Amino acid sequence: MAQGTLLYAQSGGVTAVINATASAVITEARARKIKVLAARNGILGALREELIDTSKESAAAIRALAHTPGGAFGSCRVKLKSLEADRARYERLLAVLKAHDVRWFLYNGGNDSADTALKVSQLAQAFGYPLTCIGVPKTVDNDLAVTDTCPGFGSAAKYTAVSVREAALDVAAMAETSTKVFVYEAMGRHAGWLAAAAGLAGASPDDAPQIILFPERAYDEAAFLAQVKKVVDKVGWCVVVASEGIQHADGRFVADAGGGKDSFGHTQLGGVASYLAGRVKDQLGLKVHWTLPDYLQRSARHIASKTDWEQAQAVGKAAVQLALKGQNAVMPVIVRNSDVPYRWKIEAAPLTKVANHEKKMPANFLRKDGYGITAAARAYLEPLIRGEAYPPFGRDGLPKYVTLKNVAVAAKLPKWEE
Amino acid sequence: MAQGTLLYAQSGGVTAVINATASAVITEARARKIKVLAARNGILGALREELIDTSKESAAAIRALAHTPGGAFGSCRVKLKSLEADRARYERLLAVLKAHDVRWFLYNGGNDSADTALKVSQLAQAFGYPLTCIGVPKTVDNDLAVTDTCPGFGSAAKYTAVSVREAALDVAAMAETSTKVFVYEAMGRHAGWLAAAAGLAGASPDDAPQIILFPERAYDEAAFLAQVKKVVDKVGWCVVVASEGIQHADGRFVADAGGGKDSFGHTQLGGVASYLAGRVKDQLGLKVHWTLPDYLQRSARHIASKTDWEQAQAVGKAAVQLALKGQNAVMPVIVRNSDVPYRWKIEAAPLTKVANHEKKMPANFLRKDGYGITAAARAYLEPLIRGEAYPPFGRDGLPKYVTLKNVAVAAKLPKWEE
Repeated sequence: MAQGTLLYAQSGGVTAVINATASAVITEARARKIKVLAARNGILGALREELIDTSKESAAAIRALAHTPGGAFGSCRVKLKSLEADRARYERLLAVLKAHDVRWFLYNGGNDSADTALKVSQLAQAFGYPLTCIGVPKTVDNDLAVTDTCPGFGSAAKYTAVSVREAALDVAAMAETSTKVFVYEAMGRHAGWLAAAAGLAGASPDDAPQIILFPERAYDEAAFLAQVKKVVDKVGWCVVVASEGIQHADGRFVADAGGGKDSFGHTQLGGVASYLAGRVKDQLGLKVHWTLPDYLQRSARHIASKTDWEQAQAVGKAAVQLALKGQNAVMPVIVRNSDVPYRWKIEAAPLTKVANHEKKMPANFLRKDGYGITAAARAYLEPLIRGEAYPPFGRDGLPKYVTLKNVAVAAKLPKWEE
Repeated sequence: MAQGTLLYAQSGGVTAVINATASAVITEARARKIKVLAARNGILGALREELIDTSKESAAAIRALAHTPGGAFGSCRVKLKSLEADRARYERLLAVLKAHDVRWFLYNGGNDSADTALKVSQLAQAFGYPLTCIGVPKTVDNDLAVTDTCPGFGSAAKYTAVSVREAALDVAAMAETSTKVFVYEAMGRHAGWLAAAAGLAGASPDDAPQIILFPERAYDEAAFLAQVKKVVDKVGWCVVVASEGIQHADGRFVADAGGGKDSFGHTQLGGVASYLAGRVKDQLGLKVHWTLPDYLQRSARHIASKTDWEQAQAVGKAAVQLALKGQNAVMPVIVRNSDVPYRWKIEAAPLTKVANHEKKMPANFLRKDGYGITAAARAYLEPLIRGEAYPPFGRDGLPKYVTLKNVAVAAKLPKWEE
């Protein structure tokens, strides 16, 4: 074994392929005789010194990790603040890294994680501790700056497009005497990337989804209902895909309209699809069904995109290579060379350009009427859902997902308390 | 071409594999030189004399039909009443069948369709018209009598078990700092077959889903919440699968508890998962997510069960064979010869034994505490989700589902008005 260890941690909402990145990190490090520790529950495990010795996992388990959704070491939703505001935590982090001779820190997450990795690297430099920090991209929200796309997005996008195409065939068959409108709620609080991906399900404006509602456009109820009616009159039925983040012109989230309390004082959990379905029922008198796939859309490894899966592994492998070359404070990002044929490569981008930035959907991706996607959006999105990367299935009809042993490393420091 | 035509119609909620049955019907009939008409939108098309000439479809299209979800000719939710109460409709039906020289009528649906097929056959006999009526089984609800299982159920069951397993990995990864409870709402108004299928996702009581709520047991809120707390305390998180049909001890549907009107007088669409999630949040103070897959679960052809797909085709093929043998008023049903190895065959059952009966889940399928399934349930369910029957995918990353031409046959009778 070479001197020093590599610490890998997962952060934020997990995806269908973040473990593929983890698998690639471990595989690449093993090939180079580097010991890999993983933090339990992301940065929390690093702070708590709850570390996992990945060398206890078999090669078969690490291979299986590449087709297992979820976050094998646990993730967390913990955002570290500025170096000044959160100095104690950053220093504790550095102390843990030192105690375990961590020379390479790979943080697999979104904007916040890139920011954390950047700050840890700055602190290490200030203390003269030789540490290379790498941000590794991941998010179904597809909102990371610099990188052409984010591992995790392509698979969620494929799930969305496939599910919408399938449900639309159901609705079309039932519309004469039953459901005429179907509403699908897609993740995306700030940007409509996944809603846009649903647009891949249909080729013409009369194909489902006939209406997509994006957070990039103000929700105009009268216009929306008129559009639904127009589509039902013409096509006989209508599939609506709505981003969870759509807002009224005054900035109120539509999702907050439902919910509240019922007459018993019970919390009513609403959501965009439920709200829109209610309006269609009330105002248009049409039979309506709706779906909230929620976590299913980001964990659906069974319908992962091959492109996405390959990119998730590529950023993991590149992260180790960049780390070992000592390229500090960078993120391996996906660069698109061409749409047709689709060609991409990995490059290193400075974390300063990624941290705390948010990629918006380009304005030319939305159709003029705001209810669909343009050819430019298709050209961007389509390669990302291309190819199938099925997990192996067992004789029991279920995917063979691995559960790691996650053997703890003995702690060397006093217990940490916030 | 032989004398006489065969009329095929789809009824009720469609499934991921009802078109596989249609494909098998047409393929088998073509091999025997029998002309197949299909009714547009089920029995409605037969009443309205809106018939489709399937001979206009290419062999490739009929092959592709076998991997296309939805209902290719349209389905409907129309229940014919008794012969006495609905005599005019039955007589019109017979008139249409006669006008198109229909000698074999195949009705692909559930209990109601079996009943309709039975009554049409009785009326034809009364009028001395030579007609063979066959009911062809289909329903994700798995509630048809006599048959061991219903085509459509196995694929929805596989979707359910796979989705729950995947979402559980997501929840497990996030539980330390985020979502601790996840609620999945499964179809099943009267029987908990699909909720039971979710139980296949885990092998031990600590595996997800740790709690299943069945319509077969009264919903006891205090006991449920206590169980959620117990699981979260032990496992760290909890996945709940709830049948849409669960009821309070007094018979009120839990799904009806949410909903109602908001302060603007807008309809609030509730549902079981949304309600349960609200209770978990209010009473236990735990972060909760929930999903309502709705139509996604019954249209998910991309994760169809191979067993189910084969059985859907087998009943279609057998239906044609039975029809041509003149076996009137029967349904090809699936008979299970053994669990291990799983062996099944097709037999003919009299429609009188299927019509208007409903198969309940056996009492010994539910664990004593009512929150899980037994080994007997597993032995029954597991073969039904076995095997994958992926549809072909295009270069665009989407499944290649076919849209038929559905060429109309010229009407021979006056327009029909109810």
